Amino acid sequence: MGDPLGVGPEVILKALCSREIACRVIPIVVGLPSVMRKAAGMLRARVQIRTLSMDRLLAASETGVVYVLPPEKLRDPGDTLRSRGRKAAEGLYQTDSLLRAVEFLRTDGRQRFTKQASDLILRGTVAAACVKEAADLCLRGHALALITAPLSKASLQAAGITYAGHTELLRDFCGCKNTLMMFVRGRHKISLVTTHVPIGMIRKVLTRRRTERAIMLTHRGLGLLFGIPNPRLAVLSLNPHKGEDGLLGCEEKIVIEPAIELVCQKGVRAFGPFAADSFFSRGEWNKFDAVVAMYHDQGLIAAKLLGGERVTNLTLGLPFVRTSPGHGVAEDIAWKGVADPQGMISAILLAAKLTGTVRLPLKWN
Amino acid sequence: MGDPLGVGPEVILKALCSREIACRVIPIVVGLPSVMRKAAGMLRARVQIRTLSMDRLLAASETGVVYVLPPEKLRDPGDTLRSRGRKAAEGLYQTDSLLRAVEFLRTDGRQRFTKQASDLILRGTVAAACVKEAADLCLRGHALALITAPLSKASLQAAGITYAGHTELLRDFCGCKNTLMMFVRGRHKISLVTTHVPIGMIRKVLTRRRTERAIMLTHRGLGLLFGIPNPRLAVLSLNPHKGEDGLLGCEEKIVIEPAIELVCQKGVRAFGPFAADSFFSRGEWNKFDAVVAMYHDQGLIAAKLLGGERVTNLTLGLPFVRTSPGHGVAEDIAWKGVADPQGMISAILLAAKLTGTVRLPLKWN
Repeated sequence: MGDPLGVGPEVILKALCSREIACRVIPIVVGLPSVMRKAAGMLRARVQIRTLSMDRLLAASETGVVYVLPPEKLRDPGDTLRSRGRKAAEGLYQTDSLLRAVEFLRTDGRQRFTKQASDLILRGTVAAACVKEAADLCLRGHALALITAPLSKASLQAAGITYAGHTELLRDFCGCKNTLMMFVRGRHKISLVTTHVPIGMIRKVLTRRRTERAIMLTHRGLGLLFGIPNPRLAVLSLNPHKGEDGLLGCEEKIVIEPAIELVCQKGVRAFGPFAADSFFSRGEWNKFDAVVAMYHDQGLIAAKLLGGERVTNLTLGLPFVRTSPGHGVAEDIAWKGVADPQGMISAILLAAKLTGTVRLPLKWN
Repeated sequence: MGDPLGVGPEVILKALCSREIACRVIPIVVGLPSVMRKAAGMLRARVQIRTLSMDRLLAASETGVVYVLPPEKLRDPGDTLRSRGRKAAEGLYQTDSLLRAVEFLRTDGRQRFTKQASDLILRGTVAAACVKEAADLCLRGHALALITAPLSKASLQAAGITYAGHTELLRDFCGCKNTLMMFVRGRHKISLVTTHVPIGMIRKVLTRRRTERAIMLTHRGLGLLFGIPNPRLAVLSLNPHKGEDGLLGCEEKIVIEPAIELVCQKGVRAFGPFAADSFFSRGEWNKFDAVVAMYHDQGLIAAKLLGGERVTNLTLGLPFVRTSPGHGVAEDIAWKGVADPQGMISAILLAAKLTGTVRLPLKWN
């Protein structure tokens, strides 16, 4: 369900009701029935929201019904949920609205939270519990793929969950060593060596080993998920004009080029580094099966310009298929009924397409 | 003429012979006649290359002739040209080929230069002298606009010229306080707060004052050059997800937002900061007269994807109009006759359009 106050609930409902999705998949929304009902009310959607329990998962097959599975973890006192917020979170099931629970938490005399802080804690707790529950379904084979709605990093942090996003949270939850973000739109694929890192920190985070691993995982992912056994990979440079022979930065020489050499020795067809600004405009893009970008905006400005709202975030390295729309929580337009479900629809379609061809669980080594 | 071993000479000739340019402007190529002749020979262009001198500038009006003015500065021993390279540079006029002069410099017994180093010194010296001579023509009113072909930063540095590029060189040569790079394609305009800076250094270079100045100069430039008196400006963020409330970097809070506030107090209509990845894809771009980007690749990935080869680099802050194609020296494809002149054609056309409406010299304060 993603962050309850983001566009998640809304785009999920719109997507599930859309012609492109309906009848093509059997969706289970892991989230709060109260929130999904509220979203359905706002959108005046002609669907029934039905609460599902773990022991009746297979019952989720009727059309015209959206099945919502509340995460069990939320009731577990040992979870990341702080004790002070627990009662309120339980209240989510009894009352019918998230907002009332937030109100409860705020007005509770023992709390010293501001409204904003208590909102954030609740949102983060709920969102993280949903992700974990959904990942659990996939790990246990009850679901074929996980499609996530956007999380708010600020609310995750407020809830004591220090992951930068889904990718890292899922990596640890599933016990994987490496994961990688890849953005997909049609035949265009772009993966990121560093993701949610401030620009000033990239230099420290971008190591030869990390770059090498990212290229290897991209290579493996194209074979495993897309059936491209020996893909051609383009690796971008970090600095402007690919460092201009060291005058504009040395990372090309000491990090990226050695990493490319190393993977080439292992038989991977990796080329570069290419200057990022001209790479995309010259259509070089089309000569490769995937592009490995060095940082978030470098890859995403291009991916979103080329793919629009339909660009999909795919996680490589997990034992199951996980996709997500490319956009964020977009609180500014959330709960107004105006959010565009195209991103969510594409994410669901890509997940459906990939699960049709791969063998689960995915083996990355 | 730009770097003699880059695509400059070739795209200049192709552009001047193209239907779009011929007869619309009176061009003077500041460069080496020998190099331009070599380019014409390679391209089998049906033009005559005629050497021009300063006292006969007005004679440059015949069609079917490309007039080339060799830079006087090259003969001046007091220039940045190192004494060891001077003799060779003078040789450029006597022999008929740059390559022979380079050969001369390399085989001269007193030199300890490698081939690469001597090539670089010569190229940088020639290219910088051409830029200065051309700027001088504009400053003295002999020319209305300066259109530059790409420079190689490595060769500039080898020649002892420590500027990162045209923009900075021209700023100091013309005695201007501030200049700014802006990329233009149709009604899309994007200016850069920092330009040729390694990613790891942006954090240090990006100050509140620099950001404020860049926004102000963009504002002024739109009024002065494009006749948009009170433009709407969008300012991008530096970090992914515009810093996600400080979790992914603090520059938004302590640099960009205060800078926007400051310029707004002066009556400038500046908005933001916007997350760079979604800004361009969502079409927000179209709601503003110009975009202020924080660093090279952030602005240029988008500008080149939206504008293709026809994106033009325009310098704000100089007393005259200066444009340049968006591409670099592209040594890999230079002197093969395959370089695309579209960038140069657009640069010439934009310069011609702007000089038709502005009053020279431009007053920036």
